[in-house]
Amino acid sequence: MGLIVQKFGGSSVANAERVMNVAKIVTDTYKKGNDVVVVVSAQGDTTDDLIAKAKEINPGAPKREMDMLMAAGEQISISLLAMAIEKLGYHAVSLLGWQAGFSTDSVYSAARIKKVDTKRLKTELGNKKIVVVAGFQGINKYDDVTTLGRGGSDTSAVAIAAALHADKCQIYTDVDGVYTADPRKVKNAQRLSEITYDEMLELATLGAQVLNNRSVEMAKKYNVQLEVISSLNPIPGTMVKETAKMEKMLVRGVTKDADASRISITGLNDVPGVAFKIFASLAAKNINVDIILQSVGRDGTKDIAFTVSEAHADDAVMAINSLPFIGDAKVVRDDTIAKISVVGAGMETHPGTASTMFEALFNQDINIQMISTSEIKISVLIDRKDADRAVAAVHEAFFGNV
Amino acid sequence: MGLIVQKFGGSSVANAERVMNVAKIVTDTYKKGNDVVVVVSAQGDTTDDLIAKAKEINPGAPKREMDMLMAAGEQISISLLAMAIEKLGYHAVSLLGWQAGFSTDSVYSAARIKKVDTKRLKTELGNKKIVVVAGFQGINKYDDVTTLGRGGSDTSAVAIAAALHADKCQIYTDVDGVYTADPRKVKNAQRLSEITYDEMLELATLGAQVLNNRSVEMAKKYNVQLEVISSLNPIPGTMVKETAKMEKMLVRGVTKDADASRISITGLNDVPGVAFKIFASLAAKNINVDIILQSVGRDGTKDIAFTVSEAHADDAVMAINSLPFIGDAKVVRDDTIAKISVVGAGMETHPGTASTMFEALFNQDINIQMISTSEIKISVLIDRKDADRAVAAVHEAFFGNV
Repeated sequence: MGLIVQKFGGSSVANAERVMNVAKIVTDTYKKGNDVVVVVSAQGDTTDDLIAKAKEINPGAPKREMDMLMAAGEQISISLLAMAIEKLGYHAVSLLGWQAGFSTDSVYSAARIKKVDTKRLKTELGNKKIVVVAGFQGINKYDDVTTLGRGGSDTSAVAIAAALHADKCQIYTDVDGVYTADPRKVKNAQRLSEITYDEMLELATLGAQVLNNRSVEMAKKYNVQLEVISSLNPIPGTMVKETAKMEKMLVRGVTKDADASRISITGLNDVPGVAFKIFASLAAKNINVDIILQSVGRDGTKDIAFTVSEAHADDAVMAINSLPFIGDAKVVRDDTIAKISVVGAGMETHPGTASTMFEALFNQDINIQMISTSEIKISVLIDRKDADRAVAAVHEAFFGNV
Repeated sequence: MGLIVQKFGGSSVANAERVMNVAKIVTDTYKKGNDVVVVVSAQGDTTDDLIAKAKEINPGAPKREMDMLMAAGEQISISLLAMAIEKLGYHAVSLLGWQAGFSTDSVYSAARIKKVDTKRLKTELGNKKIVVVAGFQGINKYDDVTTLGRGGSDTSAVAIAAALHADKCQIYTDVDGVYTADPRKVKNAQRLSEITYDEMLELATLGAQVLNNRSVEMAKKYNVQLEVISSLNPIPGTMVKETAKMEKMLVRGVTKDADASRISITGLNDVPGVAFKIFASLAAKNINVDIILQSVGRDGTKDIAFTVSEAHADDAVMAINSLPFIGDAKVVRDDTIAKISVVGAGMETHPGTASTMFEALFNQDINIQMISTSEIKISVLIDRKDADRAVAAVHEAFFGNV
């Protein structure tokens, strides 16, 4: 008995059969006496079709028009889902982003939600309708359609849950929860029943892309109880919340991120402000830097190394080479690396976590190239070819060979 | 130099190549110093795809949700056309029905325009943008998306032309104007350079579906100069306006309508109110009745015959059979008929028109079953198998064998 927000992605509504499956889940929740708001993405193939149509006409189309085009995708999926719910004998109403009250800024294709005006949502819920909302979209102050960018529907769902003070926000996916490691790669990966927002954020950043980061940040900010749950397998999923039961685990999960390039700069003149200027030049180009390592080199020079996503590596090398003080310093790019991380809020008070991880890698003869730590995370850079073996070994060290 | 509204239908924007062709026509008009508002329908295949998706999920889907779904079609075509115009180096902005100011009533799937608020349109034109507007759609007082029904984009275009006091409203089609007969069937069919609103209305009703009727009615009411013009063949089309040059013709065109069933009721008791009750029962079921003929039958009974479109024939027969006073009267349906009409504002003052038409049919041994006349039209019912031959003969009688 309460108010539940449910979000379904593009693959969950990809065809008529799946739309009916979603309608079944939604009406089952409604039947139990809950008010239900459903947020859906565009059907998987629709999005691809629309992008192809645009590219054929104008590969450099204005983003405003791309947003107008893409927003048609959710318009199709919400009306189809509303029809499916009606087919099952329940009353539904579909709402576009602007009808559901989503105001955003004007950064087309990557807009941020400024406000959710809940008047219409509350009216429809008051009429006992199941409300089907187009995720990923809103309007700006000019009354123009905007989209939130990749994974935006997660954010739409959390924003509605926050604005309506919903009891729960369920994110339906094709996995049945958050695991201690990628279950397709690690046999003994265990499903977590609970995880904290901070842990989820680290896992998302580290490549376990179950939830969009912005949505988790927003959930943390407004204390929205998230549940990651399967749309195909009807079992409880993973709850994401402020504090979580530790279940005797120090570590929540082990992740791999193979989308990383290391940029090394050796032989830099050791004068103040060098590091600042380097990273300022990258920030100016919107290049996110991950692990940073600085060490003293030979003859009064110093070395700086850092990682970026592979897509940004070219730009990063160019940006650095164009700095006036680079001089004879050598800039080298290395794409043969991977980042392995362990994440867990419990480990900050357990100094043994790092050594357990390093020992597991040592036992496998895997060399650690760089190390980075935060309060709830330890990451190491290793050779990419060792990555899957490393994840398995580290996972076994923490979770055993169940 | 002026303000021109141009409307393109679904087949004119069916694929990337045709969208580029439309962009070319639009920017050519803009280059000549005109302000341009373009109204487009959904791409032909999009509409069919969306209907198929809906039918698969819920053949009895609520009309509100069907309108939400269908409106996505124009959202796709307007953004694609705006991209194409930008590709040619001009600035465009696409607007959905509600953004372009279209308020309608709440009859989903067949809504009527109540008002066009021109504020946004004027702002964009003031910024020298080419404005691309989604035809066929608007919103009602609940902020819900509505559609105008078949041919609604014509009406959208005329409504904008009326609201903005445009100099001209060009309706682009796959024919290059209005002809004196169907040019695919009649060799000597002639393209008209001008025609009046009333004549155009009669031609539309009679099966020469070049323009949607509501759009012509609205153009007449607000005195909008319409031009029916080809999107493929760049020659002047047919102007539709209040008065038109007669070009020495009494008759503007000869049309055929083969979608007609005749319902005959014979042996009705001749008491007052019988005809009224029959046609009231049909009106209650929204069945449009065309030609009506009433005659005195045998033994103090009377006979009534009328035509309806074939799709309504079953319902019409049922409605009449359920009337309490029908008694022993016989209700017979006949689908072997066709209606041939001549239309022209000039003929009301020329009594010879009817006899010219009847003589042409007599010379071909074609029997006339029913006759109906109005100020600018004469229609006859004949055997359907004679229809094409009848059109050719009547056309030759009026226009000669050029």
